[in-house]
Amino acid sequence: MAGMDLRPLIQPGGKIVLFVWDGLGGITSGPNGETELQAARTPNADRLAREGVCGRLVPVYPGVTPGSGPGHLGLFGYDPIEYQIGRGALEAAGVGFDLQHGDVAARLNFCTLDAHGRISDRRAGRIPTEESKPVVEKLAREVREVDGVKVFWAPVKEYRALLVLRGEGLGDGVEDTDPQKTGVAPLAPKASDDSAASARTARIAAKVLQKAHACLAGQPKANGVLARGFAMRPHWPTVTERFGVKAAVVAGTPMYRGVAKLVGMEELPACNEVAKDVASVAAAWDKYDYFFLHYKHTDKAGEDGDFKAKVHYIEEADAAIPAIEKLGPDVLIVTADHSTPSAMKAHSWHPVPVLLWAKTVRHDRAERFDEISCITGGLGLMPSEHLMPLALAHAGRLAKFGA
Amino acid sequence: MAGMDLRPLIQPGGKIVLFVWDGLGGITSGPNGETELQAARTPNADRLAREGVCGRLVPVYPGVTPGSGPGHLGLFGYDPIEYQIGRGALEAAGVGFDLQHGDVAARLNFCTLDAHGRISDRRAGRIPTEESKPVVEKLAREVREVDGVKVFWAPVKEYRALLVLRGEGLGDGVEDTDPQKTGVAPLAPKASDDSAASARTARIAAKVLQKAHACLAGQPKANGVLARGFAMRPHWPTVTERFGVKAAVVAGTPMYRGVAKLVGMEELPACNEVAKDVASVAAAWDKYDYFFLHYKHTDKAGEDGDFKAKVHYIEEADAAIPAIEKLGPDVLIVTADHSTPSAMKAHSWHPVPVLLWAKTVRHDRAERFDEISCITGGLGLMPSEHLMPLALAHAGRLAKFGA
Repeated sequence: MAGMDLRPLIQPGGKIVLFVWDGLGGITSGPNGETELQAARTPNADRLAREGVCGRLVPVYPGVTPGSGPGHLGLFGYDPIEYQIGRGALEAAGVGFDLQHGDVAARLNFCTLDAHGRISDRRAGRIPTEESKPVVEKLAREVREVDGVKVFWAPVKEYRALLVLRGEGLGDGVEDTDPQKTGVAPLAPKASDDSAASARTARIAAKVLQKAHACLAGQPKANGVLARGFAMRPHWPTVTERFGVKAAVVAGTPMYRGVAKLVGMEELPACNEVAKDVASVAAAWDKYDYFFLHYKHTDKAGEDGDFKAKVHYIEEADAAIPAIEKLGPDVLIVTADHSTPSAMKAHSWHPVPVLLWAKTVRHDRAERFDEISCITGGLGLMPSEHLMPLALAHAGRLAKFGA
Repeated sequence: MAGMDLRPLIQPGGKIVLFVWDGLGGITSGPNGETELQAARTPNADRLAREGVCGRLVPVYPGVTPGSGPGHLGLFGYDPIEYQIGRGALEAAGVGFDLQHGDVAARLNFCTLDAHGRISDRRAGRIPTEESKPVVEKLAREVREVDGVKVFWAPVKEYRALLVLRGEGLGDGVEDTDPQKTGVAPLAPKASDDSAASARTARIAAKVLQKAHACLAGQPKANGVLARGFAMRPHWPTVTERFGVKAAVVAGTPMYRGVAKLVGMEELPACNEVAKDVASVAAAWDKYDYFFLHYKHTDKAGEDGDFKAKVHYIEEADAAIPAIEKLGPDVLIVTADHSTPSAMKAHSWHPVPVLLWAKTVRHDRAERFDEISCITGGLGLMPSEHLMPLALAHAGRLAKFGA
């Protein structure tokens, strides 16, 4: 089933809350052959499952494990295969850098260069954040502008950082400078397309990296940088343009805020404490039609391989449901961007459970909110991308198609 | 959900065995209202179903009954609507003729011509293979080359045979010579497109058929030939190119070997005795990532309308499972290319049951391997084409998509 342009059907309607329990899905790996969600006590989600309709979402494509960006884009109604974010732009989102249209962002690795300028370590001894942060701050002080283009540097984590160029006429057709091996010098940034903008950006990036190397000359480990994934902020239609909703994001982690802002959601205060984050939704309740509320800890516990912790955090998220219900949403959805089974200590391709509560649902036989019960759910097994039109429909926001 | 290019995600991983029980699916037609698979005792497949994840595959499109070619292409991850094989090329695959790129193949019917050269029987009295084979051999001896183009003739079955032209600059835009009625002469081969290659091929085919008619002049029944479905070997990307697996086929019947070879699988010894065919997989275990093991007898019994025989052969295939498990595959799949209900004595459009066993599955409530239990399976109802990415994922062969 290909995508559908819903714009001609948009009409005013009720309020929608999308409550994402990051990495929620698991595999049957618990002490009694259950998933984390089956092991958890989730009286509120179970009640919503009984009163609502359930199903399972395929985030990107069968068998494909999504990163956080594609996983969320699907939930927002954007086909993640069609809407791909360049690495640099995603990194900017990840650290909360407010990338403007026209900016060019790149991911940086600090590296170690020998006396001949050849790379001896592509990750600068994997220096910890405490060591790399002062180095980034030094770059930010000393390399601030080249040929009228503003230069921004931001720390990411350990040996990784972000570079952003801001100025007129930039392009992102620029090749990586990381040769992907040691014993050779970093590559010069080279234009990868024929545009004047990319050629200019490659020239400026070369000067920026030259200045950076001069600035880092005295550093013991991080005396060089390698740039990858040059990318601009994509020109995407917003959720308001595509779906007619004024939308807000409440997410304590910069990456999720960043992705939501790429599709036009406005940022509300958030801190990764679920009660406070729900209060942030409540405080702005009258101003928006659609709230994306993100809960991070479930994914973290999955990545850590900690079954018990994941169960605990699922229960914590469940306990936040009544406070959301109290706001009176017309549609309340609980689901995930992808699975993160603690047995795999990583994201996975397994479908994610979804429940949609609304007064207009047709019930099904799913009596509990978990991966296995949801197989019998009325929503079936569908691409994440189909969730947004269903949310709009249950909120009365889509008019009849055809007479 | 349109197709997805998985190549950027390919990484090394575990071994996959695809065990195809040809024509496995049935309809509820047994003495107790059961399918052949429900009636069969399949302790091994049932155990794999409990330990794995189940579902159902739609081979081509809902309601569409697949031939053997499309049915298998779907299982190999090729959308059978996009990847269509010309009739001549499929016939070449079916008789194990090793069609080269540049060859043009056509299906032949022997026919009976009257004294005026008009067709009196389009199938030459449906002569049996014993009668047609010597006629084909006579053609192969006497019509071997025309204008520098090599000519090959191969028997197929009864009144059917295969013609292959091999030479420089051939094309397959050539119309059938079968007028589809009696009382008229065979049509002359005519180019169906504007290419020089097709025009040349039509001219050569005309000469070849003229020589064939001269050669067959004395035959009592098969004194003429009609050519249909001129086609070249398609230029398709291989499973190695698309999915990163080195793949082998073990199939005792030429057709299935032929289709597998069109997508780049290498041929291993096979004889349609399942224990020996499994041994053939075992002997090459270290050399390949992906094994397609074909079991024919289930389809044959279905085509014969023999419910009991189909049950028997399902049980025979099931008994071969432990020997495959002993090899230690990371992913073991049991499924079919299409349904062949014995009650219908023919292929059908009904979805086929599938089980996927791997250590990384999420279980479901399917406790038995049969068409009805599989409705509750975690894989849901999906196009056959989605099976390959899921097999790759469960074998750890697909990296994360996006960050």
